[in-house]
Amino acid sequence: MNNIIIHGNAIVGQSGGPTAAINATLAGVISGMLKQKKSTLYGMRNGIDGVLCDHLINLSETFTDENGSIREDDLALLAHTPAAALGSCRHKLPAADDLAGEQTYEKIIEIFKKYDIRTFFYIGGNDSMDTVAKLSFYTEKVGYPMTLIGVPKTIDNDLMGTDHTPGFGSAAKFVATVTREIIFDCAVYTVPAVTIVEIMGRDAGWLTAAAAIGRVVDGIAPDYVYLPERDFSMEGFMDDLRAALAKHPNVVVAISEGIHLADGTPVGAASGVGPDAFGHVQLGGAGKALEYAVREQIGCKVRSIELNLPQRCGAHLLSATDIEESLRTGEGAVMAAAQGVSGEMMTIDRVSNAPYRTEIGHKPVAAIANQVRYVDAAYINEAGNNITDAGCHYLAPVIEGKISLPYAGGVPKFYRFD
Amino acid sequence: MNNIIIHGNAIVGQSGGPTAAINATLAGVISGMLKQKKSTLYGMRNGIDGVLCDHLINLSETFTDENGSIREDDLALLAHTPAAALGSCRHKLPAADDLAGEQTYEKIIEIFKKYDIRTFFYIGGNDSMDTVAKLSFYTEKVGYPMTLIGVPKTIDNDLMGTDHTPGFGSAAKFVATVTREIIFDCAVYTVPAVTIVEIMGRDAGWLTAAAAIGRVVDGIAPDYVYLPERDFSMEGFMDDLRAALAKHPNVVVAISEGIHLADGTPVGAASGVGPDAFGHVQLGGAGKALEYAVREQIGCKVRSIELNLPQRCGAHLLSATDIEESLRTGEGAVMAAAQGVSGEMMTIDRVSNAPYRTEIGHKPVAAIANQVRYVDAAYINEAGNNITDAGCHYLAPVIEGKISLPYAGGVPKFYRFD
Repeated sequence: MNNIIIHGNAIVGQSGGPTAAINATLAGVISGMLKQKKSTLYGMRNGIDGVLCDHLINLSETFTDENGSIREDDLALLAHTPAAALGSCRHKLPAADDLAGEQTYEKIIEIFKKYDIRTFFYIGGNDSMDTVAKLSFYTEKVGYPMTLIGVPKTIDNDLMGTDHTPGFGSAAKFVATVTREIIFDCAVYTVPAVTIVEIMGRDAGWLTAAAAIGRVVDGIAPDYVYLPERDFSMEGFMDDLRAALAKHPNVVVAISEGIHLADGTPVGAASGVGPDAFGHVQLGGAGKALEYAVREQIGCKVRSIELNLPQRCGAHLLSATDIEESLRTGEGAVMAAAQGVSGEMMTIDRVSNAPYRTEIGHKPVAAIANQVRYVDAAYINEAGNNITDAGCHYLAPVIEGKISLPYAGGVPKFYRFD
Repeated sequence: MNNIIIHGNAIVGQSGGPTAAINATLAGVISGMLKQKKSTLYGMRNGIDGVLCDHLINLSETFTDENGSIREDDLALLAHTPAAALGSCRHKLPAADDLAGEQTYEKIIEIFKKYDIRTFFYIGGNDSMDTVAKLSFYTEKVGYPMTLIGVPKTIDNDLMGTDHTPGFGSAAKFVATVTREIIFDCAVYTVPAVTIVEIMGRDAGWLTAAAAIGRVVDGIAPDYVYLPERDFSMEGFMDDLRAALAKHPNVVVAISEGIHLADGTPVGAASGVGPDAFGHVQLGGAGKALEYAVREQIGCKVRSIELNLPQRCGAHLLSATDIEESLRTGEGAVMAAAQGVSGEMMTIDRVSNAPYRTEIGHKPVAAIANQVRYVDAAYINEAGNNITDAGCHYLAPVIEGKISLPYAGGVPKFYRFD
């Protein structure tokens, strides 16, 4: 990669919700940039907010030792560190053709000029791609020569144009593994019981679908899986549970946090605000709402488990496939920038399924931003209460492989900027 | 171990809540028994219930191949399988001197005679030790020659007479690791926010205390840790949070599910279910209750995370120390039985802290059952809102070491009886 050319300096930032793999992508960008040696790579603290308040960090310096060698150990540590090491933000830029937003863009260009920044890498989800699209529009409009690349990241796997997203595989591995462990845990008693596992995913059910992967491995999977792609029916749910309880005492179901009734009402309303779709006072999300409903309508032992933050920050259970692809996506972004690609998002393209092989590509970000990629219809069964084998086989490769983290004092070692 | 003598046959069962290490102890008992070759080892399906309904499994046969060799691979798989492979129960035996309970004991003795069972291993927590104590009392009363050994197991670490319990180390490693990952996840935004991590522990706060271990490793730990050993004050809690928020925006606290006010009222309201068979009040929702209170009284962003079942069944993150000690405790139980010990519970005795070294011992179960071992006063700070360095150093060795599980299809392989 010594022949790549980056004009001026470059900057990289992270935005949106943390994942266990977003720092692997950052490590990929840093690694790619350090190999070309010419330009300096800056990091934004807390995404675009760091540009707006001139809070940058010189990453080229941070990851190079006094002899000019790359600090490979630190990069490796960074690649396995959860969350977003540079910090994140949830800053939606004003419309780029809106005069009221002009000041924001002028401030950004001022900082770019100050540090001679001509290349911009933004690692994030849908909203981050929106930032890349708007900055592309604006820099072109004012004629500031700029290369802008979006690098995908989301545990939701809901970005268009890419087979799957960096960060999804590790979250999916956590979901598949922990759901399996919960199934074992719930199997110890003979008393009829329902366990509801609530998994992240407001609009798209990809991560929840991962709970079913075990079925094509050795038959161990939840009895039912409910995604936001299908309308949820309380009557249908109770019928499903009764049918399962008639066969075995320990019923486990996986649900997406975003499941909703046919009229769009979320099964779980926002915490703390009024009754949910079923008139229960809310103490939690969809899982808690269903827990109360099962207790009331079936009357058996019932428990709900919200996998919560650990599913997106569980770095102790990374998918090796995900981390490797996340690194490659980051390095690929540097290559693409050097080739003059701009206004595009990096993609992971599945070349073959068996053996599993992917290539890193890129697509115009404007066609990707602000859209949602839903779970394919072919991956959801006809009854809308489970994942098809085709769905499991599509998902399975992205959770393959283990990463052995360095531990100290019994807990994993992670990287932190001072 | 070829010179040990077990009279008649033996039986082993698991009882109480599952843990990630209870099957390691079972594997230790099976391994110890198979080495002595003479007696048959039976397993109770679902604890003492399996005896009462004559639902036993021949473990000697199951773990021996056609050539008479021990199935070491299956035993290794069993040792890393979460929950309770034989199934569990929550059956409280009637008082052994109560005539009304006579029938139950007569039934048990009938099954013992049917299979010539003279040795009884029961792996469990406080309530299981109660079963051992009662059976000891009854068999002695009726003159049935029986060797009875309790083998401890609980993630709560609240059994008297032992330095710590098998199962605790793995749960503590999960709590320490996931809390660390949550701290990283919460650090990405600059908006003031409080995150409340709710950890299992009704009466004793050992597992919650494990969240603090990182502080003596590299300074990364929750801002505060609240245990049921100290009365909880809502005013004190809000003062603590305000002080922390004045220093940094991302405040993380760990709480035990069983924290309560000075008058004994649980911070989390009862979840609508009455006391269980052992008189425990069903708790839930301390984290949610505090989340609401923080939102109301401080008004910042706030989130609560219940670590829930994964903390006790997270076999993908076992403590090697815990698994090794659990195996040794199981094997030690067989040795103790062969030496004529009866009516005693196996113990883990800490011989030295640095280097960490333990020995397996035993103590009369009557002195242990139905008591609770609370967190030592020296391990809780004066303000009652954190763990002392001494506490962290006591806890640290039990989470040391990693176990590399076999994986297939991206998920861990576990053992199941057919």
